[in-house]
Amino acid sequence: MAAEEITIGNYIVRRLEEQNIRSIFGVPGSYLANFLDNVESSSIKWVGECNELIAAYAADGYARYRGGLGVLATTVGVGELSAINGVAGSFAEELPILHIVGQQPSIDQEEGLNVIHTLGDGKYDTFAKSTTPYICSQFLLSKKEIGLGVVDQSIDKVIVDCISKSRPAYIALPADLVDTKIVTTRLHEPLKKEEIPNNKDAESTAITHIYQRFTEAFAGWQDNNVLVIADVSISRHHCKKEVADFLAATDLPVYGTPLGKTVVDETSPRYGGVYIGDLSDAEVKKKVESARLVVLIGPLTTDFNSGKFSYKIKDENAIKIHYDHTEVGFASYARVGMKELLPKLGERLKDFKNRASKLTVPKFELKPVTDSDKQITHDWLWWRLGAWFEKNDLIITEAGSVSYGVLDLPLPSGSSLLAQKLWASIGWSMGATHGAMLARREIEGAQAPKTILFIGDGSFQMTVQEISGFMRSGINPIIFVITNGGYTIERLQHNVEGEYHNIVTWSYGDLLKVLASTTNPIETKTYKVSKETELGKLLDVQKIRNNNCLQLVEIDVGRDDAPPALRRALGIPDPDNSSADHGKQGVFLPRRDFKAPLGIIGW
Amino acid sequence: MAAEEITIGNYIVRRLEEQNIRSIFGVPGSYLANFLDNVESSSIKWVGECNELIAAYAADGYARYRGGLGVLATTVGVGELSAINGVAGSFAEELPILHIVGQQPSIDQEEGLNVIHTLGDGKYDTFAKSTTPYICSQFLLSKKEIGLGVVDQSIDKVIVDCISKSRPAYIALPADLVDTKIVTTRLHEPLKKEEIPNNKDAESTAITHIYQRFTEAFAGWQDNNVLVIADVSISRHHCKKEVADFLAATDLPVYGTPLGKTVVDETSPRYGGVYIGDLSDAEVKKKVESARLVVLIGPLTTDFNSGKFSYKIKDENAIKIHYDHTEVGFASYARVGMKELLPKLGERLKDFKNRASKLTVPKFELKPVTDSDKQITHDWLWWRLGAWFEKNDLIITEAGSVSYGVLDLPLPSGSSLLAQKLWASIGWSMGATHGAMLARREIEGAQAPKTILFIGDGSFQMTVQEISGFMRSGINPIIFVITNGGYTIERLQHNVEGEYHNIVTWSYGDLLKVLASTTNPIETKTYKVSKETELGKLLDVQKIRNNNCLQLVEIDVGRDDAPPALRRALGIPDPDNSSADHGKQGVFLPRRDFKAPLGIIGW
Repeated sequence: MAAEEITIGNYIVRRLEEQNIRSIFGVPGSYLANFLDNVESSSIKWVGECNELIAAYAADGYARYRGGLGVLATTVGVGELSAINGVAGSFAEELPILHIVGQQPSIDQEEGLNVIHTLGDGKYDTFAKSTTPYICSQFLLSKKEIGLGVVDQSIDKVIVDCISKSRPAYIALPADLVDTKIVTTRLHEPLKKEEIPNNKDAESTAITHIYQRFTEAFAGWQDNNVLVIADVSISRHHCKKEVADFLAATDLPVYGTPLGKTVVDETSPRYGGVYIGDLSDAEVKKKVESARLVVLIGPLTTDFNSGKFSYKIKDENAIKIHYDHTEVGFASYARVGMKELLPKLGERLKDFKNRASKLTVPKFELKPVTDSDKQITHDWLWWRLGAWFEKNDLIITEAGSVSYGVLDLPLPSGSSLLAQKLWASIGWSMGATHGAMLARREIEGAQAPKTILFIGDGSFQMTVQEISGFMRSGINPIIFVITNGGYTIERLQHNVEGEYHNIVTWSYGDLLKVLASTTNPIETKTYKVSKETELGKLLDVQKIRNNNCLQLVEIDVGRDDAPPALRRALGIPDPDNSSADHGKQGVFLPRRDFKAPLGIIGW
Repeated sequence: MAAEEITIGNYIVRRLEEQNIRSIFGVPGSYLANFLDNVESSSIKWVGECNELIAAYAADGYARYRGGLGVLATTVGVGELSAINGVAGSFAEELPILHIVGQQPSIDQEEGLNVIHTLGDGKYDTFAKSTTPYICSQFLLSKKEIGLGVVDQSIDKVIVDCISKSRPAYIALPADLVDTKIVTTRLHEPLKKEEIPNNKDAESTAITHIYQRFTEAFAGWQDNNVLVIADVSISRHHCKKEVADFLAATDLPVYGTPLGKTVVDETSPRYGGVYIGDLSDAEVKKKVESARLVVLIGPLTTDFNSGKFSYKIKDENAIKIHYDHTEVGFASYARVGMKELLPKLGERLKDFKNRASKLTVPKFELKPVTDSDKQITHDWLWWRLGAWFEKNDLIITEAGSVSYGVLDLPLPSGSSLLAQKLWASIGWSMGATHGAMLARREIEGAQAPKTILFIGDGSFQMTVQEISGFMRSGINPIIFVITNGGYTIERLQHNVEGEYHNIVTWSYGDLLKVLASTTNPIETKTYKVSKETELGKLLDVQKIRNNNCLQLVEIDVGRDDAPPALRRALGIPDPDNSSADHGKQGVFLPRRDFKAPLGIIGW
């Protein structure tokens, strides 16, 4: 009996369906059309975006929310290079994005023809080559691969690499080869993430070592024997549940980090706030830096995350539990990763639970604020918003000032915070909101709790057309656009009066009417506020907290105002708005008695 | 006496002023601010754009119009990668764009810190490396270079490479090194384009050879002894004047090409129309393909330019005059370039002028049309617009359908057509219009004749925020947005009913209000037409042909309508609108009994 056959395009689509992909983001193009025919006839929805960079951001948000694969499809050259900044961001922040590129037909490629979307040099591999720093795996379909009968294996390998390494991967499909038939044999076996199991001997040695360190730390009482710092790699490697169980088993005090916001429940009485080195709250700083033992789970040392490398935790007092190895003081245990280690470690450390539960934790609470008639400032804004957030909200913050706004707030139980803070490409959050909300709808249904996007005006202008994408997909984030006519974070860092920091202020609210479909308009609401009472009323009285229509709130905060956490980061002491002298002293902050290791993200 | 000193940033600015740069396009960023301080204190205007891709397109348009350097400045990583598709387009189409990238401080780089806008791997050279296929020269500033005292030379080399090779080049400036002082000595000598002079012996041999071929061709009379095809490399290498003089000296019949539109005066009685291989007008095709001798000046064989490689000119009947070499039949003369050759060749070939002037040329004229009450179709639209164009208009066409619209029209004397047809990145024309119009204003003053932009709705949505850029710079193109709810050229090529071709139709005209500055609004006019009489009235009665305010005309052409030249290219015979079956037969057109040489663009 001859083996069953399937087109290459459909083979890929089947593999994506298997990964529960329900949406693919991209922009069509003549070389991509054959593949898109396969998508159109599948269970997967094609989400056409206004441009490719937005599509890449959307695929990132989709993967980020669902904790799994996201798919981006573009045409060759012009399309893929437009998207490459988004893909690079997904690489930096460890997201598995499969980028499918529709290429010129192989017959053109073989003859080295000078066709559109090439550099005019008859070469067809330039783009695939220049994309390699931003992907972990690549497959360029060709007649040769078809002849060798290895197309199925090659596709499978790229998808497995993508989901296992949690980095972008790349498949190029010459338009004339997409409909070539291959056998379905391999489809009987679903693709799975490759996990490297812990080395059991190393793991049990590490547990014994950690137990011994806990014994020493708890020998003799002080209020600050041991604490945990829960950081971003926990969520990147999908270990939030393991960490929650570990904390429940041990009752240890836990602190967060800027990148690790919402990784653990910030409303827990055992949660003490955010540690950011020298930029920490004084009480948090004292607690962490005087501890006998600090268990860092999933740490990632970036400038933003570490208070510009100002951590004061001695290596000999640290236990670092990474996704693939564990360090106890100066001893490193390879192949002892957090996912398998944490349940066993929690079980073993129960002996210390009684003592741990007596360790005190600073209160991490919202500062109550009242609404006055004054212009809104960041000092008021974030506390006010914090009180308005609800359980299970999805909060998305753009890079720039707003990403600092939420740092000081305890976020509600079950809430998620999405932010791109290492790559920090402004404009990202518009696409990411689209992708994340589609993923959320696929997982939780249309009635999922509200999604809130915070974005500055400069960032909003980068990718504003994504408003149209929201409408097209029928998703309804509540968009807060913080306006002050420029790139605030840049102004505050260097030459606050530089004209080059300025942008033009648009009629942001009106965009929702203009970017809507003329034939299929949807309901929208827009608000513009500049006084505390105006926003207060909106939040309380008008109850905008629903997902029934697309809403945009324009908040005018006045020039050069910034969230407290950003002021701390930039060394701006005064809480008033006299900013005239900021930044004159230069960009480069005092920093670093802690040296970042190389290759830190690959831990 | 100690040598005079200047900061590195100011050294670059001085070199750019020397190249008559009056505008630099980009988006600021923390690492770019030190350099922008230098720009702000110079005679050069900083043109801040909404995003980096738009900025790259603007620099492209600026360089394209002025026939010289364009400058783009972005921050590292996020900024430069957002721009890279625009830079690649400038590379493909041979434009000298200097891309200045503001990098992380060298002190961060030396320590391999994990800071924002990196991949988190402590590496800082990744982006500069991956950009190399799209640039001709690169300089990465470092302390080492400063120590060696070669910074001035290195900067000069990159700028000279950029203008001499007419391709993008790249300078990376770590933020903390921009204000380092270097000596001004080299500034006394202005930078000049390096030109390789013709080899005089080869040149005179080539002229003799060509004279001999002319003698043979004119021996025995036929109406079609010799003709010229004037192509795009003429404008890329700034030889329009030399070609005009050559044609005046010889009175030879001349034909254009799709990419070579407006390279020669299309209203001249010696101009016979556009040769596009099998897609040519029948009379043009017969003339060209039956000629005894065809002089191709600046030919560039791309799919678009050659009617999908369907040229029928035998090599033995061809003389090809390139920018750096010349081919006479099968003989190739290295270092015999058009700029120096043409004046001498024109002088030498005057002997044939009398006979050449008797060769007849098809009439290339506008087809007169009248305005009926019917919906506007492409068949009517372009002829109608052709009659409305005026001397010295600047016409810019986006890629996609509209780029085919102008092919059949004789464009007015002195007009220029800008289009990006090899790289063909949709959305390009918005930024390019901004850049080209600023260059035009710098060269010709505010009262330059009108600039007209044609763009399809799908392309417009890619980079729509550039409307705001137009207003900020106070430039007033007349923008024609051709709407039909999708990517028409894609629809017509493959699966016309594919949902993925569709976009949402916006209220395009209203954008001019919404994207305007709320504090500094400017005058705008918008129109929406769908009937011939409506547009006709607008063109004639309302006289929109002025630059006093920003104008947008939305033209609804109905789904799947396409310009005649595009229908010919796609093999769609019927002039009516029954498009239901187009594209079913597949993407790949019948083509090629002409094989494109490799490296064709480097001729």
